[in-house]
Amino acid sequence: MEKVYIAGVGQTPVRENWEKSLKELAGDAALMAIEDAELGYPEGIFIGNMMSGTANKQLQLGALIADWIGAHHKESLSIEAACGSGAAAFRAGLMAVGSGELSSALIIGVEKMTDSPINEITASLVTASDAELEGDFGVSFVALNALLMRRYMYEYGWEARDFSGFSINAHANAVHNPNARFHNKISTADFERAGMVCDPINLLDASPVCDGAAAIFITNSRPNGKHRSVSVAASAAATDTISIQHRANPMQLFAARESARKAYAQAGISPKDIGVFEYHDAFSIMAALALESCGFCEPGQGPRMALEEKIKIDGEIPVATMGGLKARGHPVGATGIYQLVEVTLQLRGEAGATQVQRNRYGMAQNIGGSGSNIFTHILRQE
Amino acid sequence: MEKVYIAGVGQTPVRENWEKSLKELAGDAALMAIEDAELGYPEGIFIGNMMSGTANKQLQLGALIADWIGAHHKESLSIEAACGSGAAAFRAGLMAVGSGELSSALIIGVEKMTDSPINEITASLVTASDAELEGDFGVSFVALNALLMRRYMYEYGWEARDFSGFSINAHANAVHNPNARFHNKISTADFERAGMVCDPINLLDASPVCDGAAAIFITNSRPNGKHRSVSVAASAAATDTISIQHRANPMQLFAARESARKAYAQAGISPKDIGVFEYHDAFSIMAALALESCGFCEPGQGPRMALEEKIKIDGEIPVATMGGLKARGHPVGATGIYQLVEVTLQLRGEAGATQVQRNRYGMAQNIGGSGSNIFTHILRQE
Repeated sequence: MEKVYIAGVGQTPVRENWEKSLKELAGDAALMAIEDAELGYPEGIFIGNMMSGTANKQLQLGALIADWIGAHHKESLSIEAACGSGAAAFRAGLMAVGSGELSSALIIGVEKMTDSPINEITASLVTASDAELEGDFGVSFVALNALLMRRYMYEYGWEARDFSGFSINAHANAVHNPNARFHNKISTADFERAGMVCDPINLLDASPVCDGAAAIFITNSRPNGKHRSVSVAASAAATDTISIQHRANPMQLFAARESARKAYAQAGISPKDIGVFEYHDAFSIMAALALESCGFCEPGQGPRMALEEKIKIDGEIPVATMGGLKARGHPVGATGIYQLVEVTLQLRGEAGATQVQRNRYGMAQNIGGSGSNIFTHILRQE
Repeated sequence: MEKVYIAGVGQTPVRENWEKSLKELAGDAALMAIEDAELGYPEGIFIGNMMSGTANKQLQLGALIADWIGAHHKESLSIEAACGSGAAAFRAGLMAVGSGELSSALIIGVEKMTDSPINEITASLVTASDAELEGDFGVSFVALNALLMRRYMYEYGWEARDFSGFSINAHANAVHNPNARFHNKISTADFERAGMVCDPINLLDASPVCDGAAAIFITNSRPNGKHRSVSVAASAAATDTISIQHRANPMQLFAARESARKAYAQAGISPKDIGVFEYHDAFSIMAALALESCGFCEPGQGPRMALEEKIKIDGEIPVATMGGLKARGHPVGATGIYQLVEVTLQLRGEAGATQVQRNRYGMAQNIGGSGSNIFTHILRQE
């Protein structure tokens, strides 16, 4: 596969956005990325989205959005891997450009969740699990994560309050990100007072339902742009059993470990070379498991890393540098692209108040389902 | 892009299938293709599907189906381009293998429509149009095609009865295909007696709602198999405005013409070299427009080609050789893969009673929406 560069990025503020439709949100992010790249329209468009069919009564986002942004007749399609849809679309676009079939592509992640009643969104989210074994029996997505967290606490001896570090870090970083859903710092006391969503997951363990779109413009030639050049050093994906109950060890995100292992090998680096890690902190338990699966700490030590503030901007491994899923927000199908946009900004040195210092390599990991489909990308400063 | 070969194919009978779930159908087709290829599990899996979220309350088909067929930990994702989802997934898989990123891939098209009440399926189908301009105002998908057909009749002076040739041909061929939805020949009189669905589209102009799955195994090295070798000679895609009302000339399927033009150029051939054409005859009007857009006849002459039987197995350009969407059936997200499986069987010389004689090149064209997203592939006998 040929080398692929990131030529442009765009993102809309993550929030409840009732003024814009799904296609308008996607279009806003897309046009920002196109303007940033200064290369005209891309040859192909890849849309990452999970629930437009169920939440917005709209499929065929490829043709819809290509048409809306004026990219007339360009090829376009939509990709879904639950909450991993954004990075899945990025990987598909990367292979299209890396194969030489297209010279450029625009990957757009978009999700518009807040037009629907929350019970319908809960029903849409659980389509990421196995309907026949999980969803049809009434288990919600937060419940699946609560089962994982409870087991983790049992296995490693942590209390629910010990997970506070992830959320505190995410909120602290989000304060500086104008596109983040939340701009409030939180304290340990706030965390301990937070209402229970699904025991042991409280409101500050869980990422919010929201609307947003982000976009990345990629090319197969080095852009002569205004930004420090960033390329894709690694792209890897793996699946796991869709049902947690079928895993030999539910405390290991096998697909996270496997896709990270492949990505490190492709880039020729190890975890210590990563200067920024945008992980998939949809719930605190996922943040802990991601740190462990990607080799940043030993199994069971995720909460300790967060409590010891090793995940802060100037820590061992800065994570959720612009708020993460927890505080930037988690418009599900868009999240993978937000993560990659944020890593790009870090590697360009354009991350503002939460700029990391070691910014040669950055990693983004996007998780679909309860760890069943995971995409890991490493970007490199050229 | 490296050369890509078709190593294996599989398909389930198209019918109302209440005994199998969506994942079981997909798994059946997948395992047939894997068995046919004799190369073990593929490195990656690409699922073409349109409406599993709305009709089956199940997304995340990538992880679900990889898990179900025992392709543990293999990467997998789902692709949607409305009724063009199957060929869209094929194109994405092709670029993955053609880029060298994967050495093999399995592309599965699957749709399970008959578990849902027909009004829900009608609502799911219209998500292929623009919700804000079409779907939300109550226009159904058959109504959009009826508008196109009415305009065509006005422009070119045809009567509704003049469209009978497409359906008669499709049903005649389907008789010999054990996987087809219908096995009854129909006559001109049957066509003229058929009940009206949405004037001027009658029951025999319209493809049926049904369940089915088909799969193709591709590799980047020439298979040493039991079959005559088939490779991908061309792959091209284009979009058009999603709403028919925005097209300068709604009587031209611009994306069909453009993707076919690119495909002919890639393969270095012209329409007269195509020995079999699996077109997207979801409605008779789409069959006519496809023949015209791909250069098999002049604008307005599609119905004449069919009436003069030039589309029969031994005619100028054999189409719908195993029944087409009309009579093999149209499980929407699976259709593009059924088409490519059928072209492969023709090029291998394994098409049975409806085998075409000129089988060096075959073309399949899969249409999403009212012509808004179109994928054209040409396969070649090696």
